[in-house]
Amino acid sequence: MTTIAIASDHAGYEMKAQIASWLAGNGYEVLDLGCNGPDSVDYPDFAAALAAAVNGKRAERGVLICGSGIGISIAANRHPGIRAALVHDVTTARLARQHNDANVVALGARIIGAEIAKDCVDAFLTTDFEGGERHSRRIAKMG
Amino acid sequence: MTTIAIASDHAGYEMKAQIASWLAGNGYEVLDLGCNGPDSVDYPDFAAALAAAVNGKRAERGVLICGSGIGISIAANRHPGIRAALVHDVTTARLARQHNDANVVALGARIIGAEIAKDCVDAFLTTDFEGGERHSRRIAKMG
Repeated sequence: MTTIAIASDHAGYEMKAQIASWLAGNGYEVLDLGCNGPDSVDYPDFAAALAAAVNGKRAERGVLICGSGIGISIAANRHPGIRAALVHDVTTARLARQHNDANVVALGARIIGAEIAKDCVDAFLTTDFEGGERHSRRIAKMG
Repeated sequence: MTTIAIASDHAGYEMKAQIASWLAGNGYEVLDLGCNGPDSVDYPDFAAALAAAVNGKRAERGVLICGSGIGISIAANRHPGIRAALVHDVTTARLARQHNDANVVALGARIIGAEIAKDCVDAFLTTDFEGGERHSRRIAKMG
């Protein structure tokens, strides 16, 4: 079973619960790294926990959620090996896999609704990297 | 005069020209770091050049453009000190400044049109960081 790590800050924890439930209902193992309530937390801490899980191969891919998706995606991309794509729709979720081989998808819980978010995660998890030397070279340059 | 650095890959160079022209017409000094044509280039190289310009204080802020905005935003955020926000609309451009004190905005030339892109850049350049200990603490944690 494919394991998907998921983490959020306080602005994203309700959407995180919805996505985690959807993942579990669609055949994925869910590694929930918090947070688990409305108390204010710092998104870089949760981005770091998820980056460690993906880089440590405890999860194949990750889902990160904060209010806009911006802060948590910046924080995640500080970690070499993590390619966190902030997406707003299925198109960008698909392209993040096809061209960038993204291993983390970032969502803004105050920007998109739960149904759009689920479709983004679905596209992210079911789209293959299209490969090709040019894409692989660019990914390698980022580290 | 405020200097804005701008860079793109081949997928973004036409939008880059449009944004550069708009910036120059709106009272900004433009530091154009390429690319300057349709020949295929690697977005991490242009993200690195722009990150160096912003971190080296040759520009106050930066604008990055690739096809989806995803690759170039991931690459930019590999550089400590750079907070590159991938935005799709004025709302996320505004939030990137208010909450994340983003110093770089990333745009997808194949995702949004030129008028939306200009409005995003305008919001990014004219919105102040709202400050506050919690936002500043999170930014400091990212480095």
